[in-house]
Amino acid sequence: MKIARFEYQGQLTFGILDEEEKVYVKLAGDPLYLGYETLDERIPIDQVQLQSPVLPRSKVIGFGRNYAEHANELGNEAAEVPMMFLKPNTSVIGPRHPIVLPPQSERVDHEAELAVVIGQVARNVPAADAGQVIFGYTIANDVTARDLQKSDGQWARAKGFDSFCPLGPIIETDFDPSRGRITAEVNGELRQEGDLSQMITSVAKLVEYASSVFTLLPGDIILTGTPAGVGPLAKGDTVTCTIEGIGSLSNPVTAR
Amino acid sequence: MKIARFEYQGQLTFGILDEEEKVYVKLAGDPLYLGYETLDERIPIDQVQLQSPVLPRSKVIGFGRNYAEHANELGNEAAEVPMMFLKPNTSVIGPRHPIVLPPQSERVDHEAELAVVIGQVARNVPAADAGQVIFGYTIANDVTARDLQKSDGQWARAKGFDSFCPLGPIIETDFDPSRGRITAEVNGELRQEGDLSQMITSVAKLVEYASSVFTLLPGDIILTGTPAGVGPLAKGDTVTCTIEGIGSLSNPVTAR
Repeated sequence: MKIARFEYQGQLTFGILDEEEKVYVKLAGDPLYLGYETLDERIPIDQVQLQSPVLPRSKVIGFGRNYAEHANELGNEAAEVPMMFLKPNTSVIGPRHPIVLPPQSERVDHEAELAVVIGQVARNVPAADAGQVIFGYTIANDVTARDLQKSDGQWARAKGFDSFCPLGPIIETDFDPSRGRITAEVNGELRQEGDLSQMITSVAKLVEYASSVFTLLPGDIILTGTPAGVGPLAKGDTVTCTIEGIGSLSNPVTAR
Repeated sequence: MKIARFEYQGQLTFGILDEEEKVYVKLAGDPLYLGYETLDERIPIDQVQLQSPVLPRSKVIGFGRNYAEHANELGNEAAEVPMMFLKPNTSVIGPRHPIVLPPQSERVDHEAELAVVIGQVARNVPAADAGQVIFGYTIANDVTARDLQKSDGQWARAKGFDSFCPLGPIIETDFDPSRGRITAEVNGELRQEGDLSQMITSVAKLVEYASSVFTLLPGDIILTGTPAGVGPLAKGDTVTCTIEGIGSLSNPVTAR
């Protein structure tokens, strides 16, 4: 099931995508908290403005260096223990919303990633039970000011600027995260390419790790690392992250 | 004005402290959003259970190495550019609530800090205007798993465990952050001691820096660094952080 969050007739609305009929079946409320009660209304997909499918009330948890080839391209060793960081919820934007290049950085990179959406209050979840606390999956662009990431040491600034966490276009609740092609294109040109099967630490193990540190709340996001091919964004670009089985997340790039 | 958030007769309530009468004057709602409308009810201070005076809906922003003597004691240089990190809102607890030592760490330290409570949506705030976006000040204990802080590189885990951000006891809206004694005691024994005047980067400059990266939201917290004397906590300890003019924040220490 593909769940979207959008503005329609001035109201924030949730809907289930019907891909054949090209409509959203309207939901009574946020399915993360209120389940899947549908209303008798079908909204044509071209009449909505998609928003981030979830707005985290607590955490966006990121993991670095989870694809060996990407770690190598930045001169790092792949992580044995996942490299964990946090992005603030103020960095989250939806599809088509602009990524804004900040004046502090001269090198802002795209990073296409599979994003896990947590559905339950969860703590100390064994990997074998991770599926029970996952609501679904979406696509993230873990936008990173590469120069500040190096110079700051801590990544809070480099990965935390407003607009540095595009999410979307929808949440797929029925998805196997163990495989699937993942790409990033800039202006239609392929930049990143990989497969979810190349992750060093599995989604289930990342949930286990994160939940051994933090209580996870409904709407929390876990970013699972990016494949090789990261590169810079420039004002005027459009960056599109795609995961087979979920969809495509496109954002234009502007500057402050 | 000292604002408290507490449980009273099973309800989450806000009140203004009357120190002479030893009562809280009940507020109609959260003053961060609803202002200072008082109700005709006075609640004796010994009849409430204090909670964290604010529960951030977005960010706890921390700054490291902002007192030279503390940076030196850990073998670091004092920061020229502030060392910024994030703690999740799931790490926040109130006065008297236990700090829980996690099994992953063998060395968990206290760090007494002045905490700034943001009162407005704020972006790119010049230092000279910082006072306009500050709601008030409280005390934080920036609890840190020192061993994991070193081994992980990123500080998200070491500073992000559940219970690692005690806040309280109240928010003082009328406070001058440029001076004031700050201490941490463990079981009544003085461990950390300093003065807010020793900060390398001022509160106003920290607000400027943070708001040049993130949009600040009402209820966001900025931790301003800790003075020298950090040290380990053990199960059974009680740690008390005190700032002259605000009060004392005490928490017992337990283990998972």
